[in-house]
Amino acid sequence: MSAPKTSVPEAVTWENGELFLLDQRLLPHEVVVNPIRDLDTAITNIQRLSVRGAPAIGIAAAYALCVAARPYATSATFADELNADCDKLIDARPTAINLAWAARKIRDAGLAAHNADPIAAMINLAEKIHADDRAQCRRIGEAGLELLPIPSGRPTGVITHCNAGALAVSELGTATAPMYAAHGAGRSLKVFVDETRPLLQGARLTAWELDAAGIDVALLCDNAAASALATGEVDCAIVGTDRVAANGDVANKIGTLMLAIACKHFGVPFYVACPSSTFDPDCPTGADIPIEHRDAAEVRRSDAADVPVYNPAFDVTPAELVTAFITDEGVLHPPYPETLARLAVKAAR
Amino acid sequence: MSAPKTSVPEAVTWENGELFLLDQRLLPHEVVVNPIRDLDTAITNIQRLSVRGAPAIGIAAAYALCVAARPYATSATFADELNADCDKLIDARPTAINLAWAARKIRDAGLAAHNADPIAAMINLAEKIHADDRAQCRRIGEAGLELLPIPSGRPTGVITHCNAGALAVSELGTATAPMYAAHGAGRSLKVFVDETRPLLQGARLTAWELDAAGIDVALLCDNAAASALATGEVDCAIVGTDRVAANGDVANKIGTLMLAIACKHFGVPFYVACPSSTFDPDCPTGADIPIEHRDAAEVRRSDAADVPVYNPAFDVTPAELVTAFITDEGVLHPPYPETLARLAVKAAR
Repeated sequence: MSAPKTSVPEAVTWENGELFLLDQRLLPHEVVVNPIRDLDTAITNIQRLSVRGAPAIGIAAAYALCVAARPYATSATFADELNADCDKLIDARPTAINLAWAARKIRDAGLAAHNADPIAAMINLAEKIHADDRAQCRRIGEAGLELLPIPSGRPTGVITHCNAGALAVSELGTATAPMYAAHGAGRSLKVFVDETRPLLQGARLTAWELDAAGIDVALLCDNAAASALATGEVDCAIVGTDRVAANGDVANKIGTLMLAIACKHFGVPFYVACPSSTFDPDCPTGADIPIEHRDAAEVRRSDAADVPVYNPAFDVTPAELVTAFITDEGVLHPPYPETLARLAVKAAR
Repeated sequence: MSAPKTSVPEAVTWENGELFLLDQRLLPHEVVVNPIRDLDTAITNIQRLSVRGAPAIGIAAAYALCVAARPYATSATFADELNADCDKLIDARPTAINLAWAARKIRDAGLAAHNADPIAAMINLAEKIHADDRAQCRRIGEAGLELLPIPSGRPTGVITHCNAGALAVSELGTATAPMYAAHGAGRSLKVFVDETRPLLQGARLTAWELDAAGIDVALLCDNAAASALATGEVDCAIVGTDRVAANGDVANKIGTLMLAIACKHFGVPFYVACPSSTFDPDCPTGADIPIEHRDAAEVRRSDAADVPVYNPAFDVTPAELVTAFITDEGVLHPPYPETLARLAVKAAR
């Protein structure tokens, strides 16, 4: 086990009543942290992906609504303004459930404390959501550790896509939590990191944070995952998710479906790591998850031909391709949706 | 059917006894054609991928050996020098069979005409290989056209990976030949073009040449292919190949295997288009095809973390995932290798 090389900054920081967001677009070469003093700045940061990763967006949204509500905390129009700001925040990005989940929770806390100190109640809840997220990641790490085999003669091989790491969540991340747990336990590990086109979150963020923690990394083009699986050196895939439908269908970064299909072909287990807040019991199947289509310029680099582009930011992996969910409520195996009921109970709280 | 927008230059040109190679690394924004006056320059151009695509490499190699042999055409050491140059040329890139196939044919022609005019015999054969390639592409186009369904209410959807187009071959390309044939026949067509990381041959070359011909194109990240297949708008995949083993296993650009697996998952036919010269009867299975691993810098862009990289240039798609081969000898369906015998006969000639 090698020592961490650098320390990875927190995606969302709340300090002395002020919100700061790390600009993840500039990583790994520049570490810039921006203060967020109003709702529009928060929304801009969410939309341009300065803050990204479903749980981190949720935490950022929770604090952002507190910041937004301060100017009208004692106004007679508090409830109307808070409702409007909450809706505006939810509209910032459509796919991740955590954004809407956190924003609505904070709004409800504010509305309930309307006649007392709503901002204090909202901040109190936002800090709790943040602390819960940290604790959930730790439990995801513990639950996932037991799924990682110890092959003889080579390190445990894991493949991951996009960034569901410390930068997307807090502390240990979700998909990365079992990797950090294994590394912390002194296990030998090699993580194949999909670069994750078009925005290269794997190459820029996951590879960087795992390498910084002293974990062996092999960066690869997304299209090389099947080749890596064919070598027999990959024991499982672990990815995060932006939303899990009631039937177990999983929305996650574009390319997740392709990796899941390849894993099935090679008989490699495909795990989805997520906190309970990612589960959306109100969304029957993956077909009901809105998929954000993003700008062609993300794909059409300067060296590409000037042609039309197909650029969905997410895809839906059907539940049948998910070997198990690694959650803060433990490892949930099929049959889905039955076993997902544990998350449903918690999501409702 | 829309008219061609621009004309796509030839990858390999032989004019008045001189060899010229288009520098495909600079496309689509710069069109630079370099004269090739010695073997080392030819090898450099092949290795740095100025010329690429298995058949084009074969044609370039054929002419390059003619150019290389001129200075020692009348030397007593002709045979030794020609053998040495042939071996050097074959070592330039290991995966494509056409390079070795063409180089050996030209060498044999030179050795056979040793005491007459070996250079004339070699050039004669190189021009024949080039002309045969053009004719083969035309036949591949005709054979492939019959495989393209005409769906009602939308264009025929085809997905392709890398560039097995006019730039990789000559005139119509291999994988693109059925697309050009369909477009030429006035059929409505939409081609999903994988960008093809790391070197973006799809984004830079295929998207460009199809768009220039007036064909509707949708450029997509390689990892979005499963998402595109899931829409139901893709009727088949057509890719090229660098080498087909005797059992029907197919070596092609990294990512081909991943696409083939996704096609199988969605029940979409996966076709491999190739001239007979791509068939290697001496190579029993895909496991016997040497796979070139290329420099980490190709994957590790300036914005990526500085970590180790897994960068095989090719992968092997097992024969069982190939719905049919589209060849100059017609469409060859399973069972392989039985039906591939037609190519074997021709490859031996």
